[in-house]
Amino acid sequence: MIIIMKPGASKDSVQYIASYIQEKGLQAHVSTGSEVTIIGVVGDKTRIQGDNLEIFEGVERVVAVTESYKLSNRKFHPEPSTIRVGSYEIGPRTLTIMAGPCAIESRDQLMQTARGVRAAGAALVRGGAYKPRTSPYSFQGLEEEGLQYMKEAREETGCAVICEVTSARAIENAVKYVDMLQIGARNMQNFELLKEAGRAGLPVLLKRGLSATIDEWLNAAEYIMAEGNENVVLCERGIRTFETATRNTLDLSAVPVLKEKTHLPVIVDPSHATGVRAYVAPLAKAAVAAGADGLMIEVHPNPEKALSDGPQSLTIPQFQTLCQELKPYALLAGRQF
Amino acid sequence: MIIIMKPGASKDSVQYIASYIQEKGLQAHVSTGSEVTIIGVVGDKTRIQGDNLEIFEGVERVVAVTESYKLSNRKFHPEPSTIRVGSYEIGPRTLTIMAGPCAIESRDQLMQTARGVRAAGAALVRGGAYKPRTSPYSFQGLEEEGLQYMKEAREETGCAVICEVTSARAIENAVKYVDMLQIGARNMQNFELLKEAGRAGLPVLLKRGLSATIDEWLNAAEYIMAEGNENVVLCERGIRTFETATRNTLDLSAVPVLKEKTHLPVIVDPSHATGVRAYVAPLAKAAVAAGADGLMIEVHPNPEKALSDGPQSLTIPQFQTLCQELKPYALLAGRQF
Amino acid sequence: MIIIMKPGASKDSVQYIASYIQEKGLQAHVSTGSEVTIIGVVGDKTRIQGDNLEIFEGVERVVAVTESYKLSNRKFHPEPSTIRVGSYEIGPRTLTIMAGPCAIESRDQLMQTARGVRAAGAALVRGGAYKPRTSPYSFQGLEEEGLQYMKEAREETGCAVICEVTSARAIENAVKYVDMLQIGARNMQNFELLKEAGRAGLPVLLKRGLSATIDEWLNAAEYIMAEGNENVVLCERGIRTFETATRNTLDLSAVPVLKEKTHLPVIVDPSHATGVRAYVAPLAKAAVAAGADGLMIEVHPNPEKALSDGPQSLTIPQFQTLCQELKPYALLAGRQF
Amino acid sequence: MIIIMKPGASKDSVQYIASYIQEKGLQAHVSTGSEVTIIGVVGDKTRIQGDNLEIFEGVERVVAVTESYKLSNRKFHPEPSTIRVGSYEIGPRTLTIMAGPCAIESRDQLMQTARGVRAAGAALVRGGAYKPRTSPYSFQGLEEEGLQYMKEAREETGCAVICEVTSARAIENAVKYVDMLQIGARNMQNFELLKEAGRAGLPVLLKRGLSATIDEWLNAAEYIMAEGNENVVLCERGIRTFETATRNTLDLSAVPVLKEKTHLPVIVDPSHATGVRAYVAPLAKAAVAAGADGLMIEVHPNPEKALSDGPQSLTIPQFQTLCQELKPYALLAGRQF
Repeated sequence: MIIIMKPGASKDSVQYIASYIQEKGLQAHVSTGSEVTIIGVVGDKTRIQGDNLEIFEGVERVVAVTESYKLSNRKFHPEPSTIRVGSYEIGPRTLTIMAGPCAIESRDQLMQTARGVRAAGAALVRGGAYKPRTSPYSFQGLEEEGLQYMKEAREETGCAVICEVTSARAIENAVKYVDMLQIGARNMQNFELLKEAGRAGLPVLLKRGLSATIDEWLNAAEYIMAEGNENVVLCERGIRTFETATRNTLDLSAVPVLKEKTHLPVIVDPSHATGVRAYVAPLAKAAVAAGADGLMIEVHPNPEKALSDGPQSLTIPQFQTLCQELKPYALLAGRQF
Repeated sequence: MIIIMKPGASKDSVQYIASYIQEKGLQAHVSTGSEVTIIGVVGDKTRIQGDNLEIFEGVERVVAVTESYKLSNRKFHPEPSTIRVGSYEIGPRTLTIMAGPCAIESRDQLMQTARGVRAAGAALVRGGAYKPRTSPYSFQGLEEEGLQYMKEAREETGCAVICEVTSARAIENAVKYVDMLQIGARNMQNFELLKEAGRAGLPVLLKRGLSATIDEWLNAAEYIMAEGNENVVLCERGIRTFETATRNTLDLSAVPVLKEKTHLPVIVDPSHATGVRAYVAPLAKAAVAAGADGLMIEVHPNPEKALSDGPQSLTIPQFQTLCQELKPYALLAGRQF
Repeated sequence: MIIIMKPGASKDSVQYIASYIQEKGLQAHVSTGSEVTIIGVVGDKTRIQGDNLEIFEGVERVVAVTESYKLSNRKFHPEPSTIRVGSYEIGPRTLTIMAGPCAIESRDQLMQTARGVRAAGAALVRGGAYKPRTSPYSFQGLEEEGLQYMKEAREETGCAVICEVTSARAIENAVKYVDMLQIGARNMQNFELLKEAGRAGLPVLLKRGLSATIDEWLNAAEYIMAEGNENVVLCERGIRTFETATRNTLDLSAVPVLKEKTHLPVIVDPSHATGVRAYVAPLAKAAVAAGADGLMIEVHPNPEKALSDGPQSLTIPQFQTLCQELKPYALLAGRQF
Repeated sequence: MIIIMKPGASKDSVQYIASYIQEKGLQAHVSTGSEVTIIGVVGDKTRIQGDNLEIFEGVERVVAVTESYKLSNRKFHPEPSTIRVGSYEIGPRTLTIMAGPCAIESRDQLMQTARGVRAAGAALVRGGAYKPRTSPYSFQGLEEEGLQYMKEAREETGCAVICEVTSARAIENAVKYVDMLQIGARNMQNFELLKEAGRAGLPVLLKRGLSATIDEWLNAAEYIMAEGNENVVLCERGIRTFETATRNTLDLSAVPVLKEKTHLPVIVDPSHATGVRAYVAPLAKAAVAAGADGLMIEVHPNPEKALSDGPQSLTIPQFQTLCQELKPYALLAGRQF
């Protein structure tokens, strides 16, 4: 931690802070410049966690030096993690494709999609049983009935299955039916839900919040991991910016940034990020080229009739074509799928 | 709803869509221009809610004409609402001041603050018992013990009391102790929590999400109201932008925009928006001048030692000075406090 | 300047950097912690300005401690400046109102507006003769003819007059006719134009760029001041965010932030910020309450026919009402107009 | 153009607007719904360009249907353009790599870089002679001396050369020495400069403004093209968002969006977008996979000593490795370099 003093800060202020820090059992290194004085704080920061040094007399600002996330931090875990989901692995040697409809609408719709995406090479079938929708008057999901169809889809196709959860009750139900839990963008800082997901025992896919910084995202992962569950996968799905040509702005720079900061795998969802079917394929390829460990793609047997997010869903044949096109990109990245 | 066709859209595409809409029992008005054709859709939109007209052959885009929020919409409820909290009213004739610490730390800290803010003119005491914190290693709140102190603060001072809730369990507890529930920015689209709050029976203060549009915010209010609870108050607390001189960017334009779109009262929180104590007073005055129905201000008896958000908290004497300065602004706005 | 080393940085890397800095004639203060090492750099930074310390072996990041703007910096000029424009003063004792049409369309339109705004209390008449428009096919301004009308408006009403300039040629013309030059948002970092404006001898109103941080804005002011022209006034006019209910998001927090960082006066333009006539009055009052030194308001005798920005323009009677309503707010702020 | 009326708009208001439009020689198609009335306007919009229909009695909002850019619009020019620069082509069959230092610092530095990037496969050498810098106290470029070195670099290596221009005077000089002009992000809406560049006769690389929407960017291209110069190439270089892990947020979605909206080629600059050397290679590959027609990469023989943007510059050997790695991605995209 570094404390930067105001230009006119008195010697007394500097001395007071230095003594304060030393009394707490830390060291204070004072550097006095012609314009400003800086105090470097060395030692166990938890001893001064509740002290608001920013508002001590003469202080201009305080700069943190170490990240607040630890378990997800690559500094303390230099090797990239591989997360096992059902019989599949998400990590540096695979390209894991998760595909399926935004919302589960019927057994037929889900089974038809599951068979189609399985044939094309998807490892996981995705499908929403609990749908967080902007308006309370939109379709909210089939709930437990949808989860039962997911289980059937797994049994028939051999794919692992993943479902978004939006409450403690949804987690309780979901663990009986699926292989992986998804925390959606709107709930990325629903810390109670993160803790529940951490305790549920299943691997968790954590989507980035619409306006979450990468640091906040890794701190959210830390909430899950601090409950003893290290099987967390991150999913970039677009951030909110001023641009309206796409629904959100897919932040592919986040992929190399995350590869540097964390050992957790990173998945990219170009369907939600863009909201436009025609942009999914080019950005899926770009994500693989940028180093992503997998993709999440919306697929629907009949997008014109989808109850949620139809405009961005691929048809089953479109998805199969995309998977063919992705194969050489996966090879270039040293990945299999 | 308006459907805008692509420039080269065939007559058949236009005819197909028009027939499709008419078969669903709505009317289609076709306007054919030199460059583009437009189809105006008139009638009960719920009949085509699940149909993704965006991806029908020849369609360029679909423009919604009516808002999806109804109960909060001023079009259907032209008079501004007045919400009763304890013995206080939030609405067009009052300036409601809510003040207190970000986090409740001890009985002493809360009681001292409650007496101080009451003396200065605050109607509600605020205090966090359940704290959503970016890092799992930060102080998370006193939980039910904190709620008990809130109840004591009400009994001693006569203020109403408000507390943030972050889970169904927290709501269950809070209703036993407080007068108003607060939904925080990070949970603005935690729809399960909104529904629970709607069913809890107490008035709800709904903070704006960090990257929520005003339309999404009003839809979130709709989730609470659709459960039968019309006592919702909105709280602007800054949005996330590129600017880093303040923690968030306080969007005071939201006040007149909301006054036009909704009948619900609007409160402004300059403390969380800026994160800097020195900016709280000028922006509190600005909020009143812009038409806000109240303010939420962080106050702490000893900000240097606050466990959360000390740098933005006013001391009790600073808060008392601010209240004095606010009185003529309230008068100019035709409000009492 | 502070250099933060990577956790595993070798002693040799630290030693190398410390020696490097000392050889350049500066001092290096090394603080070695359990996790990271920090090097505080003290002395004349210009000696290492071209050296990219960020990419030296072992460096994690470099934190600047002092601002790069000097002439505009309040640290070196603690008293707020008062800028003289014609016979008017912009500064801490006045509320300077600048009003007029977005674009000058005809002598009649301008004279009618000038008389109206003068009568209501405006000190400056604004009007665009060179219009930067998003599309090349929109009306681009009357150019020198418009400037002539501005001069006439000054002669008849006694107001000072201000005009936006968009090129060196426009400056050359404008100095013959007007009292103050305006640099628009889109040109805030057109550094060649800033230098020209700095050399032109007239006071300059510098609008904030749509996505300019406050630091970049003060650096842009520095370009003008470094040419010997200290008469710079800043104008907040909304920043670009995700919210679309207003054209831009008016950042009123910028007012107290600027009051802390710079001695230059600050004007607020609620017309361009919101783009909606009904929001201008509440935000004008809010700006004064937040501490602004003046306002820029769009006024048009017949907004329905305005060639530019009609929807946000007040009519002359609306402007007169607003000025009446602003008087008590100016009084509360200790300002006259 | 579509006019959406307010819910309570009177029949008279609707009738008034419809007549108004018809008197101007356009057609008005009125669709009356249960909640709102819509008026579709068909015909030559330039006849009502100066009329602010938004503020007519009873109007809620006006929705534009056709884009304001024409020459750059793919609707009127369906085939992708190929732009010739020196002896090179930028278009759908090539992957054009532009590389070199951010700022030209000396003949040696430029020639060494030019030889290195040429050997690796770059078609253009880039280098800044006029540098727009945030602070007036930073290095501003060698100006004409730098241009002379660029010409030498072309003569020796056979590469085409490109240079940023920041004023009419810089354009006058640059046309004597270089093959392509660059308009930087900060000047994207410096419309006077765009017009000058349009008249200069050389192809122009137009960088996206930090907060420019894609529509504004294409309108800026229109300013150049409207002067008779159709040789415009667009360059995505990151937009400003809340995220600070990278200098800007590279918007790779812009590539497929632009491919749909315009026939002009699209180049991506991952160096400026991220500001971090380690992120350049993964995002360069991603850009090619997303469909970009080329890349702009910063290369410096000795980045530790670069006067501008050293932290993001590749060394010459790093650039050569990147070019080797890019070849299979170019092949997959059907491009040569």
